[in-house]
Amino acid sequence: MNLLILNGPNLNLLGNREPEIYGSTRFESYVIALQQKFPTASIHYTQSNVEGELINALHQANNVYQGVVLNAGAYTHTSIAIADAVAALSIPVVEVHISNIFARETYRHVSFVGKHCKGSISGFGLQSYDLAVRWLMEQPGA
Amino acid sequence: MNLLILNGPNLNLLGNREPEIYGSTRFESYVIALQQKFPTASIHYTQSNVEGELINALHQANNVYQGVVLNAGAYTHTSIAIADAVAALSIPVVEVHISNIFARETYRHVSFVGKHCKGSISGFGLQSYDLAVRWLMEQPGA
Amino acid sequence: MNLLILNGPNLNLLGNREPEIYGSTRFESYVIALQQKFPTASIHYTQSNVEGELINALHQANNVYQGVVLNAGAYTHTSIAIADAVAALSIPVVEVHISNIFARETYRHVSFVGKHCKGSISGFGLQSYDLAVRWLMEQPGA
Amino acid sequence: MNLLILNGPNLNLLGNREPEIYGSTRFESYVIALQQKFPTASIHYTQSNVEGELINALHQANNVYQGVVLNAGAYTHTSIAIADAVAALSIPVVEVHISNIFARETYRHVSFVGKHCKGSISGFGLQSYDLAVRWLMEQPGA
Amino acid sequence: MNLLILNGPNLNLLGNREPEIYGSTRFESYVIALQQKFPTASIHYTQSNVEGELINALHQANNVYQGVVLNAGAYTHTSIAIADAVAALSIPVVEVHISNIFARETYRHVSFVGKHCKGSISGFGLQSYDLAVRWLMEQPGA
Amino acid sequence: MNLLILNGPNLNLLGNREPEIYGSTRFESYVIALQQKFPTASIHYTQSNVEGELINALHQANNVYQGVVLNAGAYTHTSIAIADAVAALSIPVVEVHISNIFARETYRHVSFVGKHCKGSISGFGLQSYDLAVRWLMEQPGA
Amino acid sequence: MNLLILNGPNLNLLGNREPEIYGSTRFESYVIALQQKFPTASIHYTQSNVEGELINALHQANNVYQGVVLNAGAYTHTSIAIADAVAALSIPVVEVHISNIFARETYRHVSFVGKHCKGSISGFGLQSYDLAVRWLMEQPGA
Amino acid sequence: MNLLILNGPNLNLLGNREPEIYGSTRFESYVIALQQKFPTASIHYTQSNVEGELINALHQANNVYQGVVLNAGAYTHTSIAIADAVAALSIPVVEVHISNIFARETYRHVSFVGKHCKGSISGFGLQSYDLAVRWLMEQPGA
Amino acid sequence: MNLLILNGPNLNLLGNREPEIYGSTRFESYVIALQQKFPTASIHYTQSNVEGELINALHQANNVYQGVVLNAGAYTHTSIAIADAVAALSIPVVEVHISNIFARETYRHVSFVGKHCKGSISGFGLQSYDLAVRWLMEQPGA
Amino acid sequence: MNLLILNGPNLNLLGNREPEIYGSTRFESYVIALQQKFPTASIHYTQSNVEGELINALHQANNVYQGVVLNAGAYTHTSIAIADAVAALSIPVVEVHISNIFARETYRHVSFVGKHCKGSISGFGLQSYDLAVRWLMEQPGA
Amino acid sequence: MNLLILNGPNLNLLGNREPEIYGSTRFESYVIALQQKFPTASIHYTQSNVEGELINALHQANNVYQGVVLNAGAYTHTSIAIADAVAALSIPVVEVHISNIFARETYRHVSFVGKHCKGSISGFGLQSYDLAVRWLMEQPGA
Amino acid sequence: MNLLILNGPNLNLLGNREPEIYGSTRFESYVIALQQKFPTASIHYTQSNVEGELINALHQANNVYQGVVLNAGAYTHTSIAIADAVAALSIPVVEVHISNIFARETYRHVSFVGKHCKGSISGFGLQSYDLAVRWLMEQPGA
Repeated sequence: MNLLILNGPNLNLLGNREPEIYGSTRFESYVIALQQKFPTASIHYTQSNVEGELINALHQANNVYQGVVLNAGAYTHTSIAIADAVAALSIPVVEVHISNIFARETYRHVSFVGKHCKGSISGFGLQSYDLAVRWLMEQPGA
Repeated sequence: MNLLILNGPNLNLLGNREPEIYGSTRFESYVIALQQKFPTASIHYTQSNVEGELINALHQANNVYQGVVLNAGAYTHTSIAIADAVAALSIPVVEVHISNIFARETYRHVSFVGKHCKGSISGFGLQSYDLAVRWLMEQPGA
Repeated sequence: MNLLILNGPNLNLLGNREPEIYGSTRFESYVIALQQKFPTASIHYTQSNVEGELINALHQANNVYQGVVLNAGAYTHTSIAIADAVAALSIPVVEVHISNIFARETYRHVSFVGKHCKGSISGFGLQSYDLAVRWLMEQPGA
Repeated sequence: MNLLILNGPNLNLLGNREPEIYGSTRFESYVIALQQKFPTASIHYTQSNVEGELINALHQANNVYQGVVLNAGAYTHTSIAIADAVAALSIPVVEVHISNIFARETYRHVSFVGKHCKGSISGFGLQSYDLAVRWLMEQPGA
Repeated sequence: MNLLILNGPNLNLLGNREPEIYGSTRFESYVIALQQKFPTASIHYTQSNVEGELINALHQANNVYQGVVLNAGAYTHTSIAIADAVAALSIPVVEVHISNIFARETYRHVSFVGKHCKGSISGFGLQSYDLAVRWLMEQPGA
Repeated sequence: MNLLILNGPNLNLLGNREPEIYGSTRFESYVIALQQKFPTASIHYTQSNVEGELINALHQANNVYQGVVLNAGAYTHTSIAIADAVAALSIPVVEVHISNIFARETYRHVSFVGKHCKGSISGFGLQSYDLAVRWLMEQPGA
Repeated sequence: MNLLILNGPNLNLLGNREPEIYGSTRFESYVIALQQKFPTASIHYTQSNVEGELINALHQANNVYQGVVLNAGAYTHTSIAIADAVAALSIPVVEVHISNIFARETYRHVSFVGKHCKGSISGFGLQSYDLAVRWLMEQPGA
Repeated sequence: MNLLILNGPNLNLLGNREPEIYGSTRFESYVIALQQKFPTASIHYTQSNVEGELINALHQANNVYQGVVLNAGAYTHTSIAIADAVAALSIPVVEVHISNIFARETYRHVSFVGKHCKGSISGFGLQSYDLAVRWLMEQPGA
Repeated sequence: MNLLILNGPNLNLLGNREPEIYGSTRFESYVIALQQKFPTASIHYTQSNVEGELINALHQANNVYQGVVLNAGAYTHTSIAIADAVAALSIPVVEVHISNIFARETYRHVSFVGKHCKGSISGFGLQSYDLAVRWLMEQPGA
Repeated sequence: MNLLILNGPNLNLLGNREPEIYGSTRFESYVIALQQKFPTASIHYTQSNVEGELINALHQANNVYQGVVLNAGAYTHTSIAIADAVAALSIPVVEVHISNIFARETYRHVSFVGKHCKGSISGFGLQSYDLAVRWLMEQPGA
Repeated sequence: MNLLILNGPNLNLLGNREPEIYGSTRFESYVIALQQKFPTASIHYTQSNVEGELINALHQANNVYQGVVLNAGAYTHTSIAIADAVAALSIPVVEVHISNIFARETYRHVSFVGKHCKGSISGFGLQSYDLAVRWLMEQPGA
Repeated sequence: MNLLILNGPNLNLLGNREPEIYGSTRFESYVIALQQKFPTASIHYTQSNVEGELINALHQANNVYQGVVLNAGAYTHTSIAIADAVAALSIPVVEVHISNIFARETYRHVSFVGKHCKGSISGFGLQSYDLAVRWLMEQPGA
């Protein structure tokens, strides 16, 4: 099963930024551990700070992967365009967030992107990705 | 590890109501299967349609369980009182929803309860509970 | 035809409270008169001030009654949970109000509950119930 | 007892438009059946698509009828002027709607007109008129 | 192909009012030129300042014309009743505006009427009507 | 100097309706007294409950009168169309109200119509008209 | 008859500021002309830029004047305190504005102060004061 | 003088929860001290997490107590039903809060319940109850 | 213990204005009675209608008094500046209101000032001040 | 005449995505047909999912094309930056949409981009582009 | 070049209040240092807590100074009157704030005053004033 | 001291676009002059119309520059993602705007980006950059 983890703006800073909050693990290292935890999956990882490149990546994923784990970062709350891209996919997309969006500023309580995802997981730190991958792996045909 | 699954209003109807949408599994049967999937956990299940009884159950859970999986149903969107009860607990509470709240009516996009939960999982059907239990089982000390 | 009249918060005070506004008829006496007016119906009456008990009563009504007359009182304007319970019933529910909700405070102009009812009758005093029962009695199969 | 049924915009299309929703009964035929159901009443019927003509009809009704059944259609939600005309009448006005306004678009949840009516009945199809006429017929002096 | 151009409030002033903005062409003259430009169409033109008469005209158009070009003027932004009348038609209605409504006051950015039209054309001056007629002429069966 | 007094919805009821509030003077009698008070003016009076007829009257006034006193009644708060008609006139229009609109319901605090009038006078009872006529009479060229 | 004209913030600049808009008449000169126009009145004039001093002046006016002409300037839109002071007076207060507040910024469309005034006159330039004084002079007992 | 202290959701946790904020005094101990401070009063204490039971308690208080001290907790901000129950009582109800509601989240700045109380005291910790009891004791007839 | 009672706009009218509502006691007389009731306190009283003078008084109080009882009147709802002044004090400030602000107009439900006060007491008439003084007297070090 | 058609996010999917809704024509094929229909025009086509690249394309168009047909897709409703880019052009820009934005979700009813376009055409499917090109071709100098 | 620094409410407390935030420099000392830094300027300083006195100072500045540095403090967010006073000046006014208003409470994100200033500088502590003075000194004619 | 000036969307047009408003200086020329004015600084300049590239540039600046002058253009008002990128930097960022954002459209009054900047300077034309650079140069360690 081919899976894509797609990260949005500022998530390339993980491991460098505010390690007391986000931990000191770089996302690349985390993906390696995740791959080892799910050896029957083939996990790919892409990140971009550009809204339109995230849309491109979603479009291209449709023919290549069986599922997408999407952390759209701050674009979650403002991007109708990414939400439309998700709606156009025929493979399942799972929304994840590292932090709990309902415990943060009011303008992060809105999720355009989540509307068209299969489901949403937020607040569990990097383990939000674990849970998303696990759910995708357990789907029929996985 | 003792875990409590706490369900709110109308969730007692699962299995009877609109089976084409919610499936024909009663929640009691689902809990049995969940217990078998996680044999090292001791999973308890309570449901109430009464907001205050959910608060009571949260208060009592604090000395008995190591984690709570909370589906507050429609009270999610209106109950500051349940949110305050969650905030007062010292054990982790995970918010779950069967459906994707961002894909439903606008008045379900708000979550008072989620603000004080550790994390939130929504949209995966009954599997939302699976993921929540798994996360709780993987915590240090579990 | 078995009918349930289900009254919500503060409606147990009818007849005692502000008789110059609400009249001096207790609701129990009114139900007796209503039963006499509709002898072919079997009219049952329940009241609760507890939101969750109203939900319980709606759930239990589904197998026992052919129709429900629901005055959810102040919960009309705030309870998504009762509205969900009404949506889950397969028997018709008629919303009634003694006073005209559009002639009162702005926060009473909203009706979550009414959204899922068959119809709504408000402003006719206790006669709102008369009209609701009559409509239920005139339905095919009554 | 002289009663006026006053219908607002687009209600002249009943019977022709979307019969699967609104039925195939023209309102004129319905009024004849209603008259037969209430032989002691004298039921008159007027319709206009013009807001101001509805106001004129309300003004003229004050000296001629003992009650008005008013379905202001879409003007219900926007017309302060019709609401003022209702407020100026000394005879009772009952608001009716064929569909349940709380189950439709948000902009139909507001009722300026209902504020000054005696009561409101909505959602029962053409039977909303039946119930309104019956209530008017049962008033003292009817 | 029979087409109706239906103009709403204040559009009878075209050619007289503020010619530096709206040009000095009266709409009647423009319709003649339009008819010459589309000789295979039969173009009729009606204007009214009365909301209800616009509704009447829409109702009557249903059996007579194969398409309507509707400039509801200021009623565009406030009339649910005209919007309902458009929704009841089985022939296509094209919304036009002479000016660009998004470049004007905020209260002109809302369009109730547009919701039920086939499409909308605004901002091209009188040429908005040209484009609307052309589109109607190019429809299958035209 | 030719002046037009143009009254909107429900103002034809003056003198008949709620005399303890509005006084028992019919507007026709008031106009006669007003004419006597300003003998050098020629005061005409029109009333309509139809929004579009008020627009018609404003259009026609442009070539005939040197000023208009406009009480648009409840349309003041909802009619962009009348406001547009006022904006198109080249003669001064004075907005009047019998009652103080800021002392009434919130939805009467908005004035679309007033935006394009020369000035506004409200709250002085029928004397609001006196003041408006006087101001028009004192203008250069009056 | 003793009358007080009370002007609020920035109105001391009249005659100096933007004469192409406000004219080149200082308010002191205008008051002299006004006094001559109404020789049977005794017109006093006070101005302050301090909200609280306007309240003081209103309090002191109650025992000394038979009426107040109040232009509260920008405080009109923000001062509940001045509105309360007006409400406490037993003599009539007339609200005036030089410009038409509905033709200016949205935040000037609200009038706290106007709610408790007898009436309101705006948009006629300095003649707004003329009309206010005239109305006060025509009251019974003037 | 018989007084009822009625506490709402989560207030049963006082003394156990977050003692650095709320102190380590359990409410039961505090009531004993309060009774000693006011020996001529007979102070009773009830708590419930269930909105409807608070309504029941208010109804029953009407015949038994001369005053109620009500801390409705989080229901303060959402419960129209409790507010209606307070409005129906003929004995005085005083609203109290331990914390200052205006210094907390915006959704706690609204008080439905307070609208119908005699007065409101918030922010003084447990001393808020002291002040409420003292005021009730000083009323005529106490 | 030196205490300052600081009253805001229009409160100088107490005793003169609407005695059926506010009573006929002037505040100066009330302060004398209050001083007698609390002989160990030294109670000072200041009033101003000027927002900035209230700020001045709060600044000067910091070195002279051990507590302030502040009734900011209508400035309560609009003054961020007074709220900032309260926040800058190191002595406790208690907010009081004679009437119950939640039972009045919506624009009085907001309290900027209360956010930074120690606590708030409203609705008890002049006794609101009694309670505030009593609480200040009971503080440690009083 | 050189014209640029500039398409925004997700419009590259046309022909592949949901053909029952959008048809099975790829936009590239459509452009060829359009070019044939308007042989005197030279039509160029660019698409990007990146907001900033759309801005770049608009900047570069200014020196090369005589008109732009812009479908900004979901950026229509959120991008002030694209709107500013349009405002900076000296050539006409026509806004087009395939679907009727007023018949979709509320958050698509807003158009930042449209504010600065010459005109707007929406709801006619791919024919929206036809109409836009035609209008540009008919401009003086085309 | 004569410059006026005009400070609003609570800014007289600088140096005394919360020195860990605002520093321990009194504004008077800061002005002396500023004067030394800009020896060719003549810098004057005024402060008032009274909104109206700030307006007075702005009026008087017009004939005496070549520029004003205005920190209106909390009045920034609520005072239309000060904004109007700034608009009436013919000399440049620069808005300054010590703290970053966008990093504080939402009600401080609005600036009425800033609308009419030449420019705005906030967030640099006392150096905000430095930058403002420097800009004024660099203007032509300085 | 290495400084980065980072400009957002449409700012590459400076000097070409609307020179009567923005002047005819290209930003590249301005940077040269700025470098000459501050010879001890090393000033670098980057511009992009792509939101994500601005985020990239901010990330890369963290290790290379001692300060950033950021004019995010229209993204200022909509981009949570850029604001998050600023928040993640350990070097000071100063927000600048050429025009005064409070004097423009309402949707430009909001600043997501400014929340996390050290300070903000707007309205001084290109001199806004001068002031920002100067402030950065005067910081300790500069």
